[in-house]
This record gives sequence, C-alpha cells and structure tokens, in this order.
Amino acid sequence: MAEIGVELDCLEGIKVVDFTQFEAGPSCTESLAWLGAEVVKIENPTTGDPGRRLRPGQPDNDPWYFHQFNANKKSLTLNLKSPRGLEIVRSLLKKADVTVENMAPGTIERLGLGYDAVKEINPGIIYCQVKGFGEGSPYEKSLAFDMIAQASGGTMSVTGEKGQPPVKPGCTIGDTGTGMLMAISVISALFQRHTTGTGRRLQVAMQDAQLNYIRGSFMMHARTGQPPGRNGARSAFGGPPPADIYPCKPGGPNDWAYVFCSHNNPEQWRRLAAVIGRPELADAPEYVDHAKRATHAAEVDAIITAWTQTHTKHEVMRIIGEAGVPCGAVLDTGDLLAEPTFQARGIIQTQHHPSGELHMPTFPVRFDGKPPKIAPAPLLGEHTTQVFGDWLGMSERDVSGLKEDGVI
Amino acid sequence: MAEIGVELDCLEGIKVVDFTQFEAGPSCTESLAWLGAEVVKIENPTTGDPGRRLRPGQPDNDPWYFHQFNANKKSLTLNLKSPRGLEIVRSLLKKADVTVENMAPGTIERLGLGYDAVKEINPGIIYCQVKGFGEGSPYEKSLAFDMIAQASGGTMSVTGEKGQPPVKPGCTIGDTGTGMLMAISVISALFQRHTTGTGRRLQVAMQDAQLNYIRGSFMMHARTGQPPGRNGARSAFGGPPPADIYPCKPGGPNDWAYVFCSHNNPEQWRRLAAVIGRPELADAPEYVDHAKRATHAAEVDAIITAWTQTHTKHEVMRIIGEAGVPCGAVLDTGDLLAEPTFQARGIIQTQHHPSGELHMPTFPVRFDGKPPKIAPAPLLGEHTTQVFGDWLGMSERDVSGLKEDGVI
Repeated sequence: MAEIGVELDCLEGIKVVDFTQFEAGPSCTESLAWLGAEVVKIENPTTGDPGRRLRPGQPDNDPWYFHQFNANKKSLTLNLKSPRGLEIVRSLLKKADVTVENMAPGTIERLGLGYDAVKEINPGIIYCQVKGFGEGSPYEKSLAFDMIAQASGGTMSVTGEKGQPPVKPGCTIGDTGTGMLMAISVISALFQRHTTGTGRRLQVAMQDAQLNYIRGSFMMHARTGQPPGRNGARSAFGGPPPADIYPCKPGGPNDWAYVFCSHNNPEQWRRLAAVIGRPELADAPEYVDHAKRATHAAEVDAIITAWTQTHTKHEVMRIIGEAGVPCGAVLDTGDLLAEPTFQARGIIQTQHHPSGELHMPTFPVRFDGKPPKIAPAPLLGEHTTQVFGDWLGMSERDVSGLKEDGVI
Repeated sequence: MAEIGVELDCLEGIKVVDFTQFEAGPSCTESLAWLGAEVVKIENPTTGDPGRRLRPGQPDNDPWYFHQFNANKKSLTLNLKSPRGLEIVRSLLKKADVTVENMAPGTIERLGLGYDAVKEINPGIIYCQVKGFGEGSPYEKSLAFDMIAQASGGTMSVTGEKGQPPVKPGCTIGDTGTGMLMAISVISALFQRHTTGTGRRLQVAMQDAQLNYIRGSFMMHARTGQPPGRNGARSAFGGPPPADIYPCKPGGPNDWAYVFCSHNNPEQWRRLAAVIGRPELADAPEYVDHAKRATHAAEVDAIITAWTQTHTKHEVMRIIGEAGVPCGAVLDTGDLLAEPTFQARGIIQTQHHPSGELHMPTFPVRFDGKPPKIAPAPLLGEHTTQVFGDWLGMSERDVSGLKEDGVI
C-alpha cells in the first residue's frame, strides 16, 4: 500500500547537534527531524548511542529500539575525549541552531561542552538539557530512566488496581513524555530567535515532566485533600457506570472494551440502552442519570457485560461508537499493526533499514493532510563524511586522516 | 516562598482563537499561553467550556479541573449560533495566527467554521483540530475521551499486572499526551510561517497519538512477533533484577521504591551491593552480571527487599541514588506537593484565583533557569470587553449592546 508521509519542511535549514542517548533525548530530536530539521547525532566511534546496544554485542545489533527513536537523523562518529575531536565538535556547535544532550549529570560539563562554554562559541544557540531530576532538587545528581521518573514523578502512584501495588504505565512518558515537552520548548525558542537572534538555555527534568501528565490527579487531590489512589481501568474522576472496561468475546487477555457515558450528555445513556437492545432502560428511574446509576452500579455493569460478552471487542467498538456513545476496544500492538487504515493514513509506516524492515509509528500529526515520512535511522557514523563536508568544508582526504588518527 | 516563574515571551504577539474544551485541546493551548501567546477561549454564554462544570451546577463551580488546563488564558463569551456571534468570531479569526478546536466530529463545520471557510477568511492561519479518531479511520465519527483513546491506542494493553485485566495509565496521555503533540506542530507551523507567510491545516487523533508513547512496546513486538503483555511495575523490556519496585517502611500503599541496574553499566550492581551492606555480593558469581542475576532472580529480589523494608522510601531513594544507582521512590501527589524544592524551583506554583488557591504544576521546562509563571484561569467571559476592544476596536457601548442582544 502506498504510504502517504511527506518530507516536512517546517524546520528546514535548522541544524541540530544531537548528543542524546536512549529515549528521553532522542525522542525530542527525532520529532525535530520529522519536522524537517537536520539532526546530526554525535556518537562515540566504538559503540555509539547505548540505545543501539540493548542486547549487547556488535554495534547496531538491536535495530528495533534504536530505530524507533532515531529515524530521519544523521550519525557521525567523534571521539570527544581527543583534543581534535573536541575541536571539531566545537566547530559543529558554532554552525548549529540547537544542541540537545541527556547524559548523566555533570558529564557534558566534564567534556568541556557545558552551557557557558558553548554559549561563548555560539551565543545564538538553543542549548538543551534533559536530566532525571531538576537543578536544585535533592536528587539533581541522581541517574534516571523512564521507570525512575514515573515512580518519582507520580504517575505510578495513580496506576494499578485499587488496594494493590503501583504499576508502571506501559507508555514511556518518563522518556518520550519528557522529550515532547522539550521539543515544544526548542521550537518556541527558535521561533523567538527569528526576531531576537538570541539563544536560550532550556532544561527539563524527567521527574518534573511527569507532573504535567497527572494534572487530573492533582485536581482530585485539591478536591479531597488526599492523594488519589489507584483506580484500575477507571479515570481519576471515577464516576458511575458505565465508565470502565467490559469483557468481550472470546475472552482473551485483551478482549475488553471501554464504555463511557458522559454526565454532560444524558443522551449517551439513552443511546446505549437502545443499542444494546434494552430501550426500556433509557428512562428507567434507577438508571436515568449519573446519580441514580451510582446507586445501582453493580446492576448497570451486569447489564452491559451481558451484552459485551456476546460480541467481539471490534463489534462492541463499532456498534456502540456508531450509536454516539464513547467506546474503545482495548487494542494491542498486534491489533494496531493489523488495522489497515493506520498504514493507509501513514500513522504506522515501514522503516526500510539495511538491517531489516520495522513497522513503526510516525509523528501522528497531519500537516495539510499528511504526517511526516519515516526515513531510516542512521548506521553508526553513516554521515560523518557528508556532515564534515557540508558543515565544515572538509575534504574526503581530511576525513580519512581523522579516521587514521582514531578521532572518528 | 518566592516563586520563580517568569512571563515567557517566546510566542509574544501570537493570537490564538481557542475553541477547545475539556483537556486534550485546552492542554495544547495552555502550553501556548505559558510560552507567551495570547490565548482567547471562545465560550458559550450560558455554561462555557464543559470542563468548568465537571460537578454540574453553576458555571465556574469546579475550579480544580478547569483551572489546571486553562491557566494564563483569556475568556470571552459568544453565541456562535447567532448570526452576529458568527460574524464576530469570523472577525476574530481574521486577526488570529492560530485556531484550535476539539469539538465532536462535524460540529465546527456545522457552525460554518470548518477549515475551508476559515482559510478563506485568513489564508495565513494555522488551523488545528484534535479528534478522537483520524480522518479515514473507521471510527472517524466516534466520540472519545482520554480513556477511550488509551484503550484503543494501545497504552492500556501494556499496563497492569501480568495475567490480569488491562489498567488505564493514571497519566492522561489520551488528552494531554495528544495536546503536547499538537503544540509541537502549531509552533513548528508558526516558525515556518515567519518565512513563507502560509497557513497550515493540522490534525491529530487521540488514538493515533497514543502510539507515539508506546514505541517500546512496538519494539518488543518487532523482536518477538507478538503483542507484549502487561508487566506490573517493570518496563517493556523486563530484564533481570533489580528492575522493579521494592517495599519500604512503613508499608503504606505508596511505600515502594524503584531500583534498577542497567546492563550498560555493570558498576551499578557493585555499587548497590556495597550500599546495602552486602559488598561480598558485588563479585559473587551468581549475581555478577545480568545473565547470572536472571537465573537467580528470586534471591536478588529477596536480598534487596530485606534492605528496603528497613528504610523509608525517601531514605531508599536518597541512599541508593547517591550511590550512583538509578532509584526512585513511588511519590504520590501528597509527596510531590510536600517536596519543598518543587515550589522553590517553580515546578509547582499556586494559582491565585478568585474562587480559591490551587497548587498546580506549570510547564516544567526552564527557560534560562526559570519555568513559566502561572496566572489564573479566566472567569467565564472575563475578557470579552478587553478582547473586543483590542482586537476589533469595539467600544464598551458596542459590547453592552451585544450583551443586551444576547450575543455574548
């Protein structure tokens, strides 16, 4: 099937020197690449981004992880601990509009590439840092991964079954959730720089970023004065049924569908009653509004379950959704990969990489009808010669010399 | 304590006509407001954004929800179903740089404010739509809320305990997760418009947006050929211990701490062994590397639990984190509100609203050291006179006339 992605040019001409690794940083710079920036990963010549090696062995041996977060980028290798390597990266930074790093606390400064040093080279640069914890936090020197951020940023405390231990949201908002907030900030700073010419220092902590995604829980805290607990499949508000998942045929682990009736629109309950063949319940006094259904919750759930159990989740989603009631089947990665319109609409695309094909999501926003097109993640050092030529005017012979000297 | 937020001016001068409601749309336009845009909510004169009324009653009766997602915005009232109201909103759109809506499918078009109509008024506008499902999806006419997007976008399928039903991540990435991707796109389109002068049509579906946040799960699917299941507190990768939450003193519902040792850095296990008083385990052949610990998982978990159970989660986080091992206590909204550096760093601020004070997170990225400052969410119609004057040159008398005619 033809894919509909386009090469977006929103950030055309923007040069990004990308020191990021794993996911929190790379998800940010990948979105810049999808929007048209030239993103050049600076990788160490031996192993590259450790995200290339989640199953240890040779470089580029685990395409699925690295390739998800580094599509559409370039890669060059550079030994930042050699004087010549450092000199070269400083020349690159001089030409750059943006630089992003998410190394362990203190590492970039020890390399001689901290904010003050880089600002001196290039006062117009947008200098961005993603760390686990914020400057001024008691944990500012601590290491973090997605799950550490989700534990300490509050998302785990509100995820799981009531009375059971916390669960980590399967979505990586510790990483990608943070990366997206930095992307918003980078582009805003670039927007402003059009008129001011002035650079910016941007910093985000993964722990801090989590709070942005649990504001419903802060609302509940304000309402009750207590930290909200875990609520299974239900939202922070809870609310009377239907507002939960219901089991569907044939009863597999993901054979469930979410059904919800908004208190804002009393029609939704009437529609639901009709579509599940129980029109007499539409105006039944026990069920007619939110308050009544709250006192008959078990019966309401039983009535809906009796119907959903005789249908597949796809049938439930289609039939109830078409009736004008909010409904969503619990779809897993297999269901999503098998849904033909995801590929037709370009939301899932195939990355054609020398090491294999990967079906992966792209940035899901459509620009004039089309999302960005996925290009392969780079091989380690694939663009060293090209970028050194384009950005610094080096000849191929210069680059060969650097290779002989162990600089790249 | 003095708060350190600043009035950010990145998007200064940008005018946003904001038709959004609830959270997915408002979270997007709120981030634009935090970055300095002038965001004007267009609300119906009777009840306003339904997000004002999550506990039905009078307008503005549930500040905690509405105020989280509408800080720093302006509000004007306008009856879009009256000819004069429609005429006025068209005049506002003519002056605007951006417009965003997330009404039910088809609603904005029925109002006469669809993309083609607005583009004709203002060819340079960035016209943005957030819907539950994408154009071309079989569900494109269906309604959605956060939980419907999370069910049908895959995040619930990978959240919960192994072998148990799916759980909804407590973070609202169906809503705010989608809003952030639209914000990235709006600002990119504005950036490009600096040079081209051309508007853009931007569309995002909440279901599609979820895929961006579960790319680790798509990676696991590519690796195994199967949809990954639920994994409790562990990440999509799983991996040998420690890579989970461990129980802490005194055993309350959120008295847990995440402890993780990266395969990338074998030192972390050695540091952990030392800090929990078991230095002899650092080089013990049963535990020395990931592969060995995988075959002794129960023993490793028991050793770590024996130590964490004798400490509070805050002690565990501090002691293990300072030893250079990734560690995060499970903090809930109460812990986060009580952590003094969140307020000192401006990540949590107090919104001073006529209806009460709300402690809430701001946009967590620091610009030159400071995050944006929170200003109160608007009262319904608070800025009608001001915006009509500033944008359209109307006099107070004109505005009074509109009120008498029931237009505002």
